[in-house]
Amino acid sequence: MSSSYGENIRLSIFGESHSPSVGMVLEGIRAGEKLDSDKLLRFLARRAPGTREYSTARREADAPVFLSGIKNGVFTGTPVCAVIQNTDTRSSDYEQLKRVPRPGHADYTAQIKYFGHQDSAGGGHFSGRLTAPMCVAGGILIQLLENEGIRIFSRIYSIGGILDTGTLDAPTADKAFPTVNDEKGAQMLALIAEKRAAGDSVGGVIEVCAKNLPAGLGDPMFDGMENRIARAVFAIPAVKGIEFGSGFAGANSCGSENNDAFYSDNGRIYTKTNNAGGILGGITNGMDLTFRAAVKPTPSIALPQDSIDMQTCEKAVLSVQGRHDPCIVPRAVPCMEAACALAVYDALLGRRKETHP
Amino acid sequence: MSSSYGENIRLSIFGESHSPSVGMVLEGIRAGEKLDSDKLLRFLARRAPGTREYSTARREADAPVFLSGIKNGVFTGTPVCAVIQNTDTRSSDYEQLKRVPRPGHADYTAQIKYFGHQDSAGGGHFSGRLTAPMCVAGGILIQLLENEGIRIFSRIYSIGGILDTGTLDAPTADKAFPTVNDEKGAQMLALIAEKRAAGDSVGGVIEVCAKNLPAGLGDPMFDGMENRIARAVFAIPAVKGIEFGSGFAGANSCGSENNDAFYSDNGRIYTKTNNAGGILGGITNGMDLTFRAAVKPTPSIALPQDSIDMQTCEKAVLSVQGRHDPCIVPRAVPCMEAACALAVYDALLGRRKETHP
Amino acid sequence: MSSSYGENIRLSIFGESHSPSVGMVLEGIRAGEKLDSDKLLRFLARRAPGTREYSTARREADAPVFLSGIKNGVFTGTPVCAVIQNTDTRSSDYEQLKRVPRPGHADYTAQIKYFGHQDSAGGGHFSGRLTAPMCVAGGILIQLLENEGIRIFSRIYSIGGILDTGTLDAPTADKAFPTVNDEKGAQMLALIAEKRAAGDSVGGVIEVCAKNLPAGLGDPMFDGMENRIARAVFAIPAVKGIEFGSGFAGANSCGSENNDAFYSDNGRIYTKTNNAGGILGGITNGMDLTFRAAVKPTPSIALPQDSIDMQTCEKAVLSVQGRHDPCIVPRAVPCMEAACALAVYDALLGRRKETHP
Amino acid sequence: MSSSYGENIRLSIFGESHSPSVGMVLEGIRAGEKLDSDKLLRFLARRAPGTREYSTARREADAPVFLSGIKNGVFTGTPVCAVIQNTDTRSSDYEQLKRVPRPGHADYTAQIKYFGHQDSAGGGHFSGRLTAPMCVAGGILIQLLENEGIRIFSRIYSIGGILDTGTLDAPTADKAFPTVNDEKGAQMLALIAEKRAAGDSVGGVIEVCAKNLPAGLGDPMFDGMENRIARAVFAIPAVKGIEFGSGFAGANSCGSENNDAFYSDNGRIYTKTNNAGGILGGITNGMDLTFRAAVKPTPSIALPQDSIDMQTCEKAVLSVQGRHDPCIVPRAVPCMEAACALAVYDALLGRRKETHP
Repeated sequence: MSSSYGENIRLSIFGESHSPSVGMVLEGIRAGEKLDSDKLLRFLARRAPGTREYSTARREADAPVFLSGIKNGVFTGTPVCAVIQNTDTRSSDYEQLKRVPRPGHADYTAQIKYFGHQDSAGGGHFSGRLTAPMCVAGGILIQLLENEGIRIFSRIYSIGGILDTGTLDAPTADKAFPTVNDEKGAQMLALIAEKRAAGDSVGGVIEVCAKNLPAGLGDPMFDGMENRIARAVFAIPAVKGIEFGSGFAGANSCGSENNDAFYSDNGRIYTKTNNAGGILGGITNGMDLTFRAAVKPTPSIALPQDSIDMQTCEKAVLSVQGRHDPCIVPRAVPCMEAACALAVYDALLGRRKETHP
Repeated sequence: MSSSYGENIRLSIFGESHSPSVGMVLEGIRAGEKLDSDKLLRFLARRAPGTREYSTARREADAPVFLSGIKNGVFTGTPVCAVIQNTDTRSSDYEQLKRVPRPGHADYTAQIKYFGHQDSAGGGHFSGRLTAPMCVAGGILIQLLENEGIRIFSRIYSIGGILDTGTLDAPTADKAFPTVNDEKGAQMLALIAEKRAAGDSVGGVIEVCAKNLPAGLGDPMFDGMENRIARAVFAIPAVKGIEFGSGFAGANSCGSENNDAFYSDNGRIYTKTNNAGGILGGITNGMDLTFRAAVKPTPSIALPQDSIDMQTCEKAVLSVQGRHDPCIVPRAVPCMEAACALAVYDALLGRRKETHP
Repeated sequence: MSSSYGENIRLSIFGESHSPSVGMVLEGIRAGEKLDSDKLLRFLARRAPGTREYSTARREADAPVFLSGIKNGVFTGTPVCAVIQNTDTRSSDYEQLKRVPRPGHADYTAQIKYFGHQDSAGGGHFSGRLTAPMCVAGGILIQLLENEGIRIFSRIYSIGGILDTGTLDAPTADKAFPTVNDEKGAQMLALIAEKRAAGDSVGGVIEVCAKNLPAGLGDPMFDGMENRIARAVFAIPAVKGIEFGSGFAGANSCGSENNDAFYSDNGRIYTKTNNAGGILGGITNGMDLTFRAAVKPTPSIALPQDSIDMQTCEKAVLSVQGRHDPCIVPRAVPCMEAACALAVYDALLGRRKETHP
Repeated sequence: MSSSYGENIRLSIFGESHSPSVGMVLEGIRAGEKLDSDKLLRFLARRAPGTREYSTARREADAPVFLSGIKNGVFTGTPVCAVIQNTDTRSSDYEQLKRVPRPGHADYTAQIKYFGHQDSAGGGHFSGRLTAPMCVAGGILIQLLENEGIRIFSRIYSIGGILDTGTLDAPTADKAFPTVNDEKGAQMLALIAEKRAAGDSVGGVIEVCAKNLPAGLGDPMFDGMENRIARAVFAIPAVKGIEFGSGFAGANSCGSENNDAFYSDNGRIYTKTNNAGGILGGITNGMDLTFRAAVKPTPSIALPQDSIDMQTCEKAVLSVQGRHDPCIVPRAVPCMEAACALAVYDALLGRRKETHP
């Protein structure tokens, strides 16, 4: 079902950008696990709007209220529901879009799919706002994974063609801008500011790393780690591509270059390189799991664009005002970690069925 | 579940490379639909081994035998089971691999996941052989989609860095080599022959197009067309990346470049460009659905590679003999179409629940 | 997943008896369907506590607040979330039960399953309170089914061995007590009052009828109508049995008695009797779908019962005070209709995939 | 999906009575588990036709051939496919039934559901023959459960109103007729012979017991043990009712009678009675899990019955000749155990996710 994820956990996400709330129901957290609320809020703050110059001016506390499944900070084992109120909504910004769909946005396809009954304000169910409950779920699972020694972190790999340099082997979350190379980060910020000033937008690529995964997670064929992660990551609006390990570049290389030779150290087996991104046959091999996701430029831009009036089928020129991020990539960074955590935690639960009597 | 796919159809794939058979069970085909067996066999022949110089010498008829769900060429509406016998297996080729895993292959992770109980001969359940039943399912669905005017076709987009040119707007299946530009195809074939001679292998990228899809297929969030297609495509061994429309390149562009402007013609709405690959918000917009998948170079190569003996944890040098494709890309082409058909047909059935009283 | 239901719709139910709210997320309602809120509230009032002499004194408005998926009374097509606040909770009533489980209640098994971390107040996630969100979902679907001419209604078939008489062929919902024979209903009420006075409780059987179903709903084997309805009905606490049509009595009869002979009238096919309860091979035959569900007596009773102290493993005598229904059967009546509606609506959506091009 | 079962295992069943084979695919068996083939064949022999006087004369070896997922008697961890050939089929027996549906059988509903494209010979996908692959799956799981000390066994509780006496606390499988009281069994056999002679049939009730289950299996609401078992049991053709523990009788009793008082012995907690059938709140309490299922009389009888010709809508009188069991109950006994094993094993795997780190 569309807004549900998981085989061993079950996540349901609901809400529209301007409905009373957005929220999520998450089943499958073991009774007795603890939640560090402050840590969750810090995680959510990373995707919250209005906190940095490159993001929309819409400001909302985005603090989740838990309605069930947790008591005194301890999960009870039953479904966890958390809601986030939508308080700062200006539906009038969207009056024009009811008839004239934004190029590159889901306005048009939502109109077709829902026969015009969708709640179109703010992008409705297709709004980036829906990543807030996804980050609540992901933020919880990231904590549970950390309890088992597993770390998930990420960086901006490129924006508008500017590539970060260096290797992602530690979190960038505490930095002012989440790149490994701060100078490259500054260049990216400058480019974003330039695009904002021009009424335009820009996209980029995010890289994610999951460290300390045990070997043996995931399943062959349709439930490999790539399948699971891709299914979660493409739920984030604007994602149009994903690659694992050496990905597209590796595909154009030779086997002798792309294969990762095995070696052992102290009785544990490693690979010398990690072109596989930690996944062979869909199953983790104990090396870092790495992937990169392509995030398209924000479709809502001030520059005039050709569209059509869906009622009259006549041409219409659109200049999107409202409050929109000139670059969604920085706010998408924690969402990628959340999506990765969904897939990893689900696979970890699945693995328990195999390893335990 | 790992080897199952679908929400409105249900596909289960079973078998190991050297088990008595590989096969599939497919539920959800409407009673009364007809099968053109010859057409299915022609489709399956495109992935069959042994028919062309760039593929393995293993030869098998690969003709599916239907055990249920079809009578006199008409589907009965109940689960369809088809099996393909494994006749030409030489398990002795694989004796060494039981202890020394091939770099880049699932030998190692299968050993971990199944505690050494896997049927390792020929790659077992991880073998490319498992794409045969996937192509049976996909080949059936491609026929059903064609009955509704939907065409799915593809081409080799690149091999070893050699890029095809031209636009994919018609099938390449009847060509000697499935590129748009035959000269580029010849260069790719030459490169494959060169790698084979060198005991090496090479990978590439495949592009797929689904034409004449109605707007409105797919669902938001976790069941968007990207999610559905990615889940199916990553089931094909060796796939390490996927991108839709302008994909990674589009991610590094500006909104003013990447957005697809709308226009209308004769009361129908189109976009001037198709950087979205026919998908907005996870839902088809009526333009061609396009994606590219990265296929890594075949890991089994004759060149010596470093590995380890899993029993002794000592270093071992491996030179894979056996019969292996120096480039799996050409045989993966119909598999991509099959995977796409799974996702599209499933979404089409889902859409019926919304459009009909 | 435990608290989720459905293949073509997806219902997730969350909440504990004394958590901030109980609620539900329902996916799969077609965009454009309308909600009659007053009708929904009247439906919910039938299961609400505190309204009649035979029920608990706990009083709550039980009015659902919709957080998403509906705008101006029209469903938007995206997931619908509704919550009901838990306002009138007295957790102190439950202090003793944390250690001494009520015989016949889930206190003990919850303790085992959740390792003592469950929210035990009021029965937690096992409380009859969780049928409130189930009735929100069911109440919505009953309206949608009525729009297609399908009626779901029910009656109390027996309480404490007192059997209703007459045939269920029209709703009993508007009656003071939902039996066909009012005199029998009065006897049942007298028995309930007697058991309440004695500090005891009593159970009974509910009969449900779904009228005007098209033939052809449901699927063979694991998704027959019996399977679907049973899965939904056993989600209602205290249900311990279900039978369709002639059920257990029919099982002890002969084929010549139990078979329903066919006849036709005006080109439509009927059966002379309906021992099949409208279901053959799991699939509706166009006759009334009928089933009966066994509801055990409320386990929480004032009479002293033997239990154990789970900490000390010593014997403890329990007399449950709190506010508890001496007979849950009347309030379970709308829950049965809700469960039936879940199954029927899901099957109806599934049937659309088969009947439409 | 209709012919699939399970959350932690996944069973797909395929085949028609007269298709080349019936069979099953079962995912989720842990690598390294062993199969005792002889034991499986003995289990299957209990449902095989033609072995006893009360069953049909159709004779088939019913020996499953494994196509995947097992090697040298050890499960590999990947999907297990087993097929059983349909060798002894006489389709001519069914010519008349294509137009004139048998009262009480799925002939009519299959015609509606599949628009006349179903394989109607022998009941097609609705045939009792489909319980053979279900028993293959169940027979495997029963062995795995026995390895963990869990026993599943059953008895005929009643046939045609003749009740067995005594308590079900040990298997009856090795008896000539599976009742506790042999005299009652002899009376049942005499009744079956009488009905056969009269061209009629008779139904009955089967009781199942699962012993030594750990407390804590199952989940609240839609995945309680009752829900899971009911979903599996109603997949067996002719089942029209199910009750757990004291069931319908308990429903008409008082709380003070029906509640099972707790006591402890040597630090373990028990109940004095077991009216709950080992399940509280959907979750096992460590007592015997018990249920009874109502099996209707075989609809195919020689006595003339009123039906209609579906093409002309004219009245037709039907006397079913062919080979049919006058009482399906004895052969349904192992099917009940198989269905129970599916539910229990699935719940056991689910529990591993909660109990293990």
